[in-house]
Amino acid sequence: MVNGSTAPAGRLTIAGLGPGALAQITPEVAAALQSATDVVGYLPYVARARAVCGAAGAESAVAWHASDNRVELDRARQALALAAQGRQVVVVSSGDPGVFAMASAVFEAMENAEPADAVAWQTLDVQVLPGITAMLAASARAGAPLGHDFCCINLSDNLKPWPVIEKRVRLAAEADFAMAFYNPRSRSRPEGFVRLLDLLRAHCEPARLLVFARAVSTPDEQLTVCTLAEAAPEMADMRTVVLVGNSATRRVGRFTYTPRFYGLPADGASPGNAP
Amino acid sequence: MVNGSTAPAGRLTIAGLGPGALAQITPEVAAALQSATDVVGYLPYVARARAVCGAAGAESAVAWHASDNRVELDRARQALALAAQGRQVVVVSSGDPGVFAMASAVFEAMENAEPADAVAWQTLDVQVLPGITAMLAASARAGAPLGHDFCCINLSDNLKPWPVIEKRVRLAAEADFAMAFYNPRSRSRPEGFVRLLDLLRAHCEPARLLVFARAVSTPDEQLTVCTLAEAAPEMADMRTVVLVGNSATRRVGRFTYTPRFYGLPADGASPGNAP
Repeated sequence: MVNGSTAPAGRLTIAGLGPGALAQITPEVAAALQSATDVVGYLPYVARARAVCGAAGAESAVAWHASDNRVELDRARQALALAAQGRQVVVVSSGDPGVFAMASAVFEAMENAEPADAVAWQTLDVQVLPGITAMLAASARAGAPLGHDFCCINLSDNLKPWPVIEKRVRLAAEADFAMAFYNPRSRSRPEGFVRLLDLLRAHCEPARLLVFARAVSTPDEQLTVCTLAEAAPEMADMRTVVLVGNSATRRVGRFTYTPRFYGLPADGASPGNAP
Repeated sequence: MVNGSTAPAGRLTIAGLGPGALAQITPEVAAALQSATDVVGYLPYVARARAVCGAAGAESAVAWHASDNRVELDRARQALALAAQGRQVVVVSSGDPGVFAMASAVFEAMENAEPADAVAWQTLDVQVLPGITAMLAASARAGAPLGHDFCCINLSDNLKPWPVIEKRVRLAAEADFAMAFYNPRSRSRPEGFVRLLDLLRAHCEPARLLVFARAVSTPDEQLTVCTLAEAAPEMADMRTVVLVGNSATRRVGRFTYTPRFYGLPADGASPGNAP
């Protein structure tokens, strides 16, 4: 298509595998994997993609390109190069590829292509297939803590300076957004989440509800709901998403939810049922 | 379980159908629909659930309870009552049930149950099954405009007073979040989205990128990308999700994306590839 040759047209699909369970992978993502010639991604996600293809008997036809964490741009370039050669390439991400995952990395690599690759890469047939992102899997398990306006912040300060995170958390608390935090804590930066809890304590009341959701939908799933006063840094690791309710988030039965109405009479029934 | 009777244990599942395409419904949601005795929801979503069950030959065994829009709490009470009678009930939402949809309505109804129902409703077997929410389907179609920290705001002022919306948009702009707006415009309140564009123009630069994503994944899908200067109120209706990039959101090829790095040296390759 690009150069008028008779080589088959390549395609690059950036697909979300959801939080872990195969039952949360959409049929369109499964179909993309089953017609791939090449699957590119971080090791554990490539393993998950193999399980999808294995179940469909399609595994043997695929070339698997698994790489370590923190080489997102190398991986993106590899995927673009393979697709430009005419391969049917699927880049796999956990969760949704557009939420702190591979989609932005692929477009960064596309924008910063070497001059010799730029036209081919920027005119490729590329599609992004959404997936269940971790915060929504976590919210579903807990009830509906993100049931009103909310924000979503990546705590990895590889990606931005800490003062940016601090400013965003302060403004989000002032806006009374519920909040979802990705990558709250790693061995290489254990102090970030300690600082986050301090920040939240400076801006939110001690009874504010938090949900620590670890490895949702996998055998390692753990769900802890507590107040800001009870929260401790050890409750989070890199497999945890932390949800913070807004000022109206509450408990009913074993569930945690945020009402749909805000700053209106407590009898939500009236506006909800108004014609 | 609750009262020691021999009646079968009911179950209430609150399931997300995704943005429209059947290929974006997760297998766990499809399985829940196929084992339901009762499906409860807004008319068009019940029709979509019937299509899922029809494809599996399970349609005839199900009682369908379709209701009009704006009766979310009535619908939630009906579902809770049916499950308390021992039925296998699925409440269907479009998108994800925890994002401006039925999950919070069910928990509101549970919390505000009549005394005679409270124990039964609050100890029911309830599960929430996530779905692909509209903003992530829209983001995937456009590229990755939500690829960095972002927030998500419902513009329906049935749910909150306008000054709350105004404050949140102002603070979100100051935080330089990308933003997703649900329910931007309806026939009964055409002026809200006009005011939103005015607000955005007061706080963001004219070149800020917006994505108007209408009915993504359906035959009516329309995608428009423009600058804030070019945006017009008529570009949105109730089937549209509006995404607003952050100050770094850009275009490459036909895609719109937000880089993963923020406030760091422009050569994203270095921090991304650091060991």
